[in-house]
Amino acid sequence: MIAILVAAGVALVVALFGTPLFIRFLTKKQYGQFVRQDGPTSHFTKRGTPTMGGVVIIGATLIGIAVAMIVSERIPSVSMWLALYLMVGLGAVGFADDLTKIRRARSLGLTPMAKIIGQGFVGISFAFLALRFPNANLRTPASTRISFLRDTNLDFAVFGATIGLILFIIWANFLITAWSNAVNLTDGLDGLATGVSLVVFMGYIVIGIWQFNQSCQRFISAGPSCYETRDPRDLAIVAAAIVGACFGFLWWNASPAKIFMGDTGSLALGGALAALSILSRTELLAVILGGLFVIIVLSDVIQIGFFKLTRKRVFKMAPLHHHFELSGWGEVTIVIRFWLISGLFVVLGMGLFYAEWVVS
Amino acid sequence: MIAILVAAGVALVVALFGTPLFIRFLTKKQYGQFVRQDGPTSHFTKRGTPTMGGVVIIGATLIGIAVAMIVSERIPSVSMWLALYLMVGLGAVGFADDLTKIRRARSLGLTPMAKIIGQGFVGISFAFLALRFPNANLRTPASTRISFLRDTNLDFAVFGATIGLILFIIWANFLITAWSNAVNLTDGLDGLATGVSLVVFMGYIVIGIWQFNQSCQRFISAGPSCYETRDPRDLAIVAAAIVGACFGFLWWNASPAKIFMGDTGSLALGGALAALSILSRTELLAVILGGLFVIIVLSDVIQIGFFKLTRKRVFKMAPLHHHFELSGWGEVTIVIRFWLISGLFVVLGMGLFYAEWVVS
Repeated sequence: MIAILVAAGVALVVALFGTPLFIRFLTKKQYGQFVRQDGPTSHFTKRGTPTMGGVVIIGATLIGIAVAMIVSERIPSVSMWLALYLMVGLGAVGFADDLTKIRRARSLGLTPMAKIIGQGFVGISFAFLALRFPNANLRTPASTRISFLRDTNLDFAVFGATIGLILFIIWANFLITAWSNAVNLTDGLDGLATGVSLVVFMGYIVIGIWQFNQSCQRFISAGPSCYETRDPRDLAIVAAAIVGACFGFLWWNASPAKIFMGDTGSLALGGALAALSILSRTELLAVILGGLFVIIVLSDVIQIGFFKLTRKRVFKMAPLHHHFELSGWGEVTIVIRFWLISGLFVVLGMGLFYAEWVVS
Repeated sequence: MIAILVAAGVALVVALFGTPLFIRFLTKKQYGQFVRQDGPTSHFTKRGTPTMGGVVIIGATLIGIAVAMIVSERIPSVSMWLALYLMVGLGAVGFADDLTKIRRARSLGLTPMAKIIGQGFVGISFAFLALRFPNANLRTPASTRISFLRDTNLDFAVFGATIGLILFIIWANFLITAWSNAVNLTDGLDGLATGVSLVVFMGYIVIGIWQFNQSCQRFISAGPSCYETRDPRDLAIVAAAIVGACFGFLWWNASPAKIFMGDTGSLALGGALAALSILSRTELLAVILGGLFVIIVLSDVIQIGFFKLTRKRVFKMAPLHHHFELSGWGEVTIVIRFWLISGLFVVLGMGLFYAEWVVS
């Protein structure tokens, strides 16, 4: 528990005080956001706001975790390394993208191919490594089973070891791509993606602590309702550090935003969410916890799909938050209501998680 | 746990769908807020926004609790009745105040004397009754001891039964007056008091559940770290219903507010906070949990005190949020940052509460 509090507290302080320093640095270097040309016209005033704030989120998370591990005199587990690898790796791809945008003074960034190669390399290596490193109880960080509230019986390994591995890598990369795109799409209004991430990762602190307290490895006679995850406490520490970092960053990112997280931030947070869902065996539960991200992705998919089929638009503009903006809701109203909705999703997800434990 | 979820869920739904109905009713009756004449000039645009939204908060809370008790087939305990009595009683005083403001078309409301008599009657009767009704273990809802994380050794009863009772009534009424004024002062920016209340009462859900799970009455051999409160689960249900009600109300109360809570809401929420702190034996812990409310009261006290002494102002305008407004922060920026700060206060308070339990 101490390590979790320290991770969150240190990350919070670093993000809170680091963000203005970073803003000053970016302003001096004249690195500003080039707002997408096809977004709502009201967003053109946001031109020039510094971006790449994800650098602070990642930095604060890493520092928070480092201090927590030193204070609690513990060595990071494989699961922690893997989660941070996916977060930092995707963050680096996003960073390259953000930097290209700024250098070339256009809103598009990296070529799609370069981005896919970068994300693919990080995602595939993550998935491959997550099935290695069994601990003393032969538990690996991830499993080849699709998980909801815990591992289900849907096991890729029934197709044999090699095909099972390949299917798992495809599945993991689907999750990683989906989550990083989801956070990326959500990051369109001041403070929206940061606030939603804050509540979703709060859920993962609770899940980590709960799985640790009810871990099968802590009891000699393992009950039916214990959890088989490898390093739940370390995952809670990662989630806590991210919550702290988002908290401190939100201070500056809330409307009117002094800085945006950029692709650096949205890909890193999406990667971290994918990693936590895979490693804590809650891949499908994450769809509920991060329900708001999912809705925003779906709004985009529905809009594009319908338009291709019928040449008509379902929403005034996709993703969904732009639809409400064009419907006359204030930006702040949308952001706060979306925060409230994601709070409900997290409560619902935690309720399911707890209910399953009570029943089983 | 079911009752807690039901209370929160029902109150949320009632507040979410009830508020727009109430707004329509008020608009039809042409009941609008008369903004204080001595506030920031930018607030004059808020003239005409419906107020008395506290009616919805109180109503949603009561309906949520009623449904929860019916579903779980339980009868409300004395502690629950007392907490609701203080909430509704102070809310009624606030309602009379709001109504007078609207009728007489001025921002001042009830005469100070009428307000003091109303609050005094409710507060004194609450305190008096809270020391009656011992349960089978001779526990009364409140105690004559001043409480921090639990009852301390500072016991008014050492001065004898009668003087102890009188001192307790004075102490309880000091807390009630302080909290209701604190929430009232905080209710100056769109969504501020609602959001802060939301996180503070979330803390009280956790405290209630925790005290219930670690209750001395549940174990035959009571450990040193068990809690001696009378009806912790019922207090958690009350807190949960209030959180749900605030949540649903915040949907409409967030910037730009479609409705204000008015004195009806701020006195009711202040009363509920005072009641929960007294009945859960966390009177001084509440000062940390509701730290943001405390800071805002202190800013007002400091401003007035300093001005009387030196004829100089410490803040550009009191209470504190108006100081930041005049310093050029956007209203939304202040509200979101104040929410974040009160989140930290609740985390700090919960940390202390938990740490004391671990150590003891």
